[in-house]
Amino acid sequence: MAPPPVAVVTLTTDFGLRDSYVAEMKGAILGIVRDVQLVDITHDVAAHDVTEAALALEAAVPYFPPATIHVAVVDPGVGTARRGVVLESRGHRFVGPDNGLFTPFVIDGARAFELRAPQYRLPDVSRTFHGRDVFGPAAGHLARGVAVEAFGPPIAELVTLRWPAPSAVGGGLVGEVVHIDRFGNLVTSIPASAVSGNGGPFAVRVAAQWLPMVETYADLPRGRAGALVGSRSRLEVAVREGSAARLLGARRGTAVYLSQRRATSTRKTTKPRRRTS
Amino acid sequence: MAPPPVAVVTLTTDFGLRDSYVAEMKGAILGIVRDVQLVDITHDVAAHDVTEAALALEAAVPYFPPATIHVAVVDPGVGTARRGVVLESRGHRFVGPDNGLFTPFVIDGARAFELRAPQYRLPDVSRTFHGRDVFGPAAGHLARGVAVEAFGPPIAELVTLRWPAPSAVGGGLVGEVVHIDRFGNLVTSIPASAVSGNGGPFAVRVAAQWLPMVETYADLPRGRAGALVGSRSRLEVAVREGSAARLLGARRGTAVYLSQRRATSTRKTTKPRRRTS
Amino acid sequence: MAPPPVAVVTLTTDFGLRDSYVAEMKGAILGIVRDVQLVDITHDVAAHDVTEAALALEAAVPYFPPATIHVAVVDPGVGTARRGVVLESRGHRFVGPDNGLFTPFVIDGARAFELRAPQYRLPDVSRTFHGRDVFGPAAGHLARGVAVEAFGPPIAELVTLRWPAPSAVGGGLVGEVVHIDRFGNLVTSIPASAVSGNGGPFAVRVAAQWLPMVETYADLPRGRAGALVGSRSRLEVAVREGSAARLLGARRGTAVYLSQRRATSTRKTTKPRRRTS
Repeated sequence: MAPPPVAVVTLTTDFGLRDSYVAEMKGAILGIVRDVQLVDITHDVAAHDVTEAALALEAAVPYFPPATIHVAVVDPGVGTARRGVVLESRGHRFVGPDNGLFTPFVIDGARAFELRAPQYRLPDVSRTFHGRDVFGPAAGHLARGVAVEAFGPPIAELVTLRWPAPSAVGGGLVGEVVHIDRFGNLVTSIPASAVSGNGGPFAVRVAAQWLPMVETYADLPRGRAGALVGSRSRLEVAVREGSAARLLGARRGTAVYLSQRRATSTRKTTKPRRRTS
Repeated sequence: MAPPPVAVVTLTTDFGLRDSYVAEMKGAILGIVRDVQLVDITHDVAAHDVTEAALALEAAVPYFPPATIHVAVVDPGVGTARRGVVLESRGHRFVGPDNGLFTPFVIDGARAFELRAPQYRLPDVSRTFHGRDVFGPAAGHLARGVAVEAFGPPIAELVTLRWPAPSAVGGGLVGEVVHIDRFGNLVTSIPASAVSGNGGPFAVRVAAQWLPMVETYADLPRGRAGALVGSRSRLEVAVREGSAARLLGARRGTAVYLSQRRATSTRKTTKPRRRTS
Repeated sequence: MAPPPVAVVTLTTDFGLRDSYVAEMKGAILGIVRDVQLVDITHDVAAHDVTEAALALEAAVPYFPPATIHVAVVDPGVGTARRGVVLESRGHRFVGPDNGLFTPFVIDGARAFELRAPQYRLPDVSRTFHGRDVFGPAAGHLARGVAVEAFGPPIAELVTLRWPAPSAVGGGLVGEVVHIDRFGNLVTSIPASAVSGNGGPFAVRVAAQWLPMVETYADLPRGRAGALVGSRSRLEVAVREGSAARLLGARRGTAVYLSQRRATSTRKTTKPRRRTS
């Protein structure tokens, strides 16, 4: 019989890569299980920004194989009474503090357990670094086959974040920028389903500019902004070979309006106009 | 019989490490093959800078074992008609967009095939992220043993970049700075072969300063600039425990002149002088 | 019989992740041994800062499993007569230049050998990159089972750094900030043992402010500074959900005073005061 495939363990934190914190977590995991694929999702989450980490998990998790173990540690409440949790959802396992990090995966049929069993932690648990002393070791034990039920009592209700979602306004949708990527692309709270096979044509307004909907970056003239369905299945605003964030002066939280009326101009700077429909 | 060694797959992109894009690529690969060594070459290529990525590959590939698979994604043309390619060259395999990324490996005897076979992509291919949906999966399938011919029809001619090379000028060579590393060392387009076992003594002029040739950094006085054959087998300009880029005000593209005449001074600031030979 | 577990090899350098240097080291290692866990401790050590790298190793090594191999390359003396070394200490193995990098592990019972055997280097050794040509390959050979004695003659005395340690002053201890982490926490030279089970209550003075001792970040009011025993078993100064470095204007080298007298105030800005005891 073939041996079971090595487990995949991903790591998502706000620790950065300059300090040795991420390595200490990996060392703790490797002390428990050696034959494992360790993959960094990101360690550059803004300090204490639980929502940003949850969005990164939402984007990346679907591309990992079933049964992957995802450790996430953005943990301003470390050392307090906040619980540690293992969550099983959508065929994946999640380990981290119960502070909303796993909001996109708190769905019907998910099962959560509190991380209490002392045998699945390091012998000495610090008051300031549970990523290394509690969550990393829990991931290691999951990877070597320990069942989620073994970590502690079930949790009926996990902490969840207010999740950014668009609202209907006058024949369109108003959402917001939830993430700005390295290229300056604006990832929004408007799902792909709002535009896919859903009538149209559409236009998008950001920072008082109407932008056309396109299929890919190269459909835009160089340096021009447009909206498209991005790789996260969300509406994104992009500038071809440029930064939409810079060109439009947008930031996280900037409002984005999706209209089912076509924009009448794709000029670089278009003023909002009274539309006579 | 011993099992075959696990495949090595390297990744080179302009995605940065703050977003989850690189992790999504790795997830897609691990969904196809689990027993694999994933190694990042760099993800900090300047956005859309195909030449910079090609230079990184040229530097790193020779130090990987034969049959390594190198995925590179700097892909401003994603979603357009530009082809995807698998290239076999120098005993290594390369996967990415056909936009010049693999220029240093487009040599006699190399074989290239277009990435067309739908069974070697993710089921849903986005218009904006072929790294995850096409190139990563192709690397995964190569790693589990799929032959390069299986991906699609042969490509007779790959896109190549104008490759930076020096030219002969008045008894010397004029090249340029092609890369500035973290230490501020200037990597130039002048190959080691121009100075190795090739007469001399040599001197190098950058930004109107004559610099001596040395063997290693520590041959220079602290804070002084000199030229040497660097670890990439290219002429480099370095400052001992300092930044040549800052001291000399050099940038990518700055001209570098290699003369077979010895510099007569190694003072920190030397003016260009009329040389009587 | 079960096969031996795959070796763990960590890497610590000042190479950064933008250049391909770290990847070249990993390629060289994988050319020698394929079944290995490669873990980055950090590559963002300040250029040539041997002490910073030694502190990172001191923090991370205890969390790796026994027999882990740690390659560290912060090597301003590359290409000179400085020795390369393999060190066995505390059940771990260390490889790098003999310039003080391994100071925390130079203890009684440690064994060191010079890296001389040509068969454990790359065939061509550059004058500027021993990480790739000497130290990485040595780690690879250790990982496939070569004994530390095989690399060269024993070294009686390794180079060591002046190690930051606090000194007793007037009923307290004066130390210094040795590291500032991503969150702006100040890691000090004062060991946990100075406060653990050692009387108290304690107070800490940094930058003319008296700060309370707490157990974890969340014991502080938001935005306030306090001192605690951090995850490195050193006294740390932190601000809850903020940066102690910024709030206190502290830098590496800033003095930190630990007093056994309780601070009488935890106001944000407290002046140093004459204490009547």
